[in-house]
Amino acid sequence: MSKVIAVNSGSSTLKWKLYSVPDETVIASGMVDRLGLSDSIFKVKYNGEKTSETGDIPDHKTAVTKMLKKLLELNIIKDYSEITGVGHRVVAGGNIFKDSAVVTPKVLQQIKDLAEFAPLHNPGQAYGIEAFQEILPDVPQVAVFDTSFHQTMDPVNYLYSVPYEYYEKYGVRKFGAHGTSHRFVSARAAEFLGKPLEDLKLISLHLGSGASIDAIKGGKSVDTSMGFTPLAGITMSTRSGDLDPSLFAYLMKKLKLSDPQDMVDILNEKSGLLGISGVSPDMRDIIATKDENKRSQLAIDIFVNRIVKYVGSYIALMNGVDVILFTAGMGEANSWIRELIMKQFAYMGVKEDKDANESGKGIRKISSDDSSVDVLVVPTDEELMIVRDVLRLTK
Amino acid sequence: MSKVIAVNSGSSTLKWKLYSVPDETVIASGMVDRLGLSDSIFKVKYNGEKTSETGDIPDHKTAVTKMLKKLLELNIIKDYSEITGVGHRVVAGGNIFKDSAVVTPKVLQQIKDLAEFAPLHNPGQAYGIEAFQEILPDVPQVAVFDTSFHQTMDPVNYLYSVPYEYYEKYGVRKFGAHGTSHRFVSARAAEFLGKPLEDLKLISLHLGSGASIDAIKGGKSVDTSMGFTPLAGITMSTRSGDLDPSLFAYLMKKLKLSDPQDMVDILNEKSGLLGISGVSPDMRDIIATKDENKRSQLAIDIFVNRIVKYVGSYIALMNGVDVILFTAGMGEANSWIRELIMKQFAYMGVKEDKDANESGKGIRKISSDDSSVDVLVVPTDEELMIVRDVLRLTK
Repeated sequence: MSKVIAVNSGSSTLKWKLYSVPDETVIASGMVDRLGLSDSIFKVKYNGEKTSETGDIPDHKTAVTKMLKKLLELNIIKDYSEITGVGHRVVAGGNIFKDSAVVTPKVLQQIKDLAEFAPLHNPGQAYGIEAFQEILPDVPQVAVFDTSFHQTMDPVNYLYSVPYEYYEKYGVRKFGAHGTSHRFVSARAAEFLGKPLEDLKLISLHLGSGASIDAIKGGKSVDTSMGFTPLAGITMSTRSGDLDPSLFAYLMKKLKLSDPQDMVDILNEKSGLLGISGVSPDMRDIIATKDENKRSQLAIDIFVNRIVKYVGSYIALMNGVDVILFTAGMGEANSWIRELIMKQFAYMGVKEDKDANESGKGIRKISSDDSSVDVLVVPTDEELMIVRDVLRLTK
Repeated sequence: MSKVIAVNSGSSTLKWKLYSVPDETVIASGMVDRLGLSDSIFKVKYNGEKTSETGDIPDHKTAVTKMLKKLLELNIIKDYSEITGVGHRVVAGGNIFKDSAVVTPKVLQQIKDLAEFAPLHNPGQAYGIEAFQEILPDVPQVAVFDTSFHQTMDPVNYLYSVPYEYYEKYGVRKFGAHGTSHRFVSARAAEFLGKPLEDLKLISLHLGSGASIDAIKGGKSVDTSMGFTPLAGITMSTRSGDLDPSLFAYLMKKLKLSDPQDMVDILNEKSGLLGISGVSPDMRDIIATKDENKRSQLAIDIFVNRIVKYVGSYIALMNGVDVILFTAGMGEANSWIRELIMKQFAYMGVKEDKDANESGKGIRKISSDDSSVDVLVVPTDEELMIVRDVLRLTK
C-alpha cells in the first residue's frame, strides 16, 4: 500500500499526517513548532506513542528532511518511494483555483502571488511545498485551497457594495475560507443521512478558533460568512467578524494609529471572545468564568447571537434549510453551545435530541425525529480531504 | 389652534414643516438650500402653491428669521406667539438620549459634544436649534434623536466584538438610525392591524437613499442594521453597508490613501448602488438601465440579497415574525422591489396580494389573507412624529 502525506505548513510551523491509501488509515503524525528558531520543537506521534525533541531547525527544508528521516528510522517506511503524493493546505486560492491543483512551477508562482490575500499563510505554505519538492522531486505535490469550495458563489453573494472597479482592478470580493472543511462535512452529512447532496439545503457551522458559516445548496457553497479575508463574519476567538466599516477609521484615530495594518492586527488578534471577555480566546475558559465575570457571559451571548443571525440569513437566502451541522473544535465538543444555538430555532420546529447532543460520539443526529430540520454533529477531517484530493488528482 | 414646526437642519440646508395641532394638519412647508452661500435658495409651499427665491442667506439665524417673516407675510400666522413649540431632528443622541428631550443649555451642549458620532449632521442641527432659540426665546425647542428608539437594544446586540475597553473609553457600540421613522411606522402598523404593538414581532424596512432594517419586538427596537454610524447594514444608494473590516486597510493601501477618513468618504459617497451599477444612486435609474447594463441588474440583485439576509437574521433573532413592513421613498413607491423581497420568503408562507402591492395607496396590507406574515406598506412621517414628541414633552 502506498502512502500520502497531508501537510499544513506556516511560516514557523509544519504539521503533517501520514496516511496509508486507499484505506485512509493514519499511520503517523507530527509537527514542527518554532521553526526557524534555535529551540524548535519536533514532535511525532506513532503507534500511540508521542515523542518530542528540541533542537535547531532553521528552515522548512531541514524540517522536512528530519521528518522523512524519522519515518525511515521508525521503520514506518522503508524507502521514500512508498510516498506517492503530498497534499498541502493553502489558504488563499483567489479567483484562480476553483479546485485543488497539482503543483507545477506556474501553480507555485500563483500561490506566492496570492500572498497579498493571505500574507500570514501563503508564503509559509509555499515554503512547505518547495521543501517537499526538493527532497521528493518525483512525488506529486497537490495544493488544496481553503477558498476553492467557495468559488461556486454567484457575484450577488461574493461582490461587495463598493465601486465595481475595485473588483476589477484589485480583486476585491468575498473568497471565504474553511472550504476544505465545509466540503468534507457537507458530503459526510449527506452520506450519513442517506440523501443525495444535490437535493439538500445545508448550513455548515465550522466553529473552531477561526469560525465560519457556509450556506450549501445542492453541494455548492452559495454564501459564506468569511469574506475577502478570514477576519469577516461571526465573532471568533480573537477576530472581530463583521464591523461597521467607519469604526475602522474612528478607532485608528482614537488609538492614534497611522498604519491601517495595525488596526487589522488588533481586529485579528485582540478582538472576538478575547476582546469581549477580557479573559481568554478559549470558549472553555470563558464558560468557566461566566458566573463571576459578566463580560464572559456577554462573550458567550454575542458568539451565539452572531451565529444565530448568520444561520437565519442563510435560511432566508436558500429559502429554507434541510440540515444544520456543527463541526470543528467547539462545534464538535461543546454540546451546551450547540443547544443554545438550536433553541433559537425552536420557533421553526427545530427540536434537540438532548441525549444524542450531550452523550453521543462521532457523526450523529442531535435533533429529534420530529424536528423540522436535521441537526448533525459531523467531525471534520481536512487532512483526509486533502489526501483524497491528492488521490483524485494524481491517479 | 396652536402651531408646531418640525425642523431638519443641516450645515447647508434647513427644511421645515408647520403643523397645526392637535389636529396635525400641515399648513406650510419649505426649505433653505445652499445655506451660507451667496446663491441660497429659499422655497416655500403653502396652499398648494410653491414659491422659490434666490439670495444671500449667510447663516441659520438669517434663514430662520426669513422663514418666520414669510409666515407673517403670507398671513399663515399673525404673531410668533402662535408657535408653541419647535421640534428638531438630531442624528446622534449617543448613549445619553433614550427619548426625545426638551432643549436646555445642557442638552444643546450634549448635542454638540455628540458631533463626533455624526460629524456631518449634529453641528448643523445645533445651529438650527440655536437660531430658533435666539429668535423665539420663549418657545420650547425639542430635540428628536434618530438613535433614541434604538436605545432599548441589549448589549448582546449593540456591542461589537472588539476589545471591551473601546466601548468604555470611546463609546464604540451600535447606535442605529432612522429611529424616528421605525418608531412611527411600527406604531402605525399595529394600529392599522388592530393589534397591540406589545404583542408583535415586527421587521421594519426603511428603504430610502439611506436604508435600514429594524427588528422590533413588543414595540422595542431589539436590533437594527445601521451601526456605530449610518454607513453599516444593507447596500444603500451610495453607502457600502457592512464590509470585511480588513478590506478597509487593503483598499487604503491600493488607493494610496493616508487618511482613513478618505476611505470612509468613498464608502459613504461612491459605493452602494452607485458603485456597483456605475449608473446612478437612484434605484429608478438603475431599473431603467437593467436590460442594457449588467451591473445595474447586479446592483438590484445585491440590494435585494442584503435585505433578504438581514430580514432572515432578524426572524431568527426574534424567533419568528408577525409583520414585515416597507416604508420610506423606495419602500413606499417601488412595488417591484417589494415583490422581489417578498418572494424570497415564500418558503415560510409569505404570500403577496399583487393587486394591493401594485395598485394600492397609502397604508395597506400587501400580503394575502392566507399569508403567514402580514406584509404592509406604511408611509412614514418623521416630521409628524417630531411634532407629536414636541406635544408630548411640552404639555
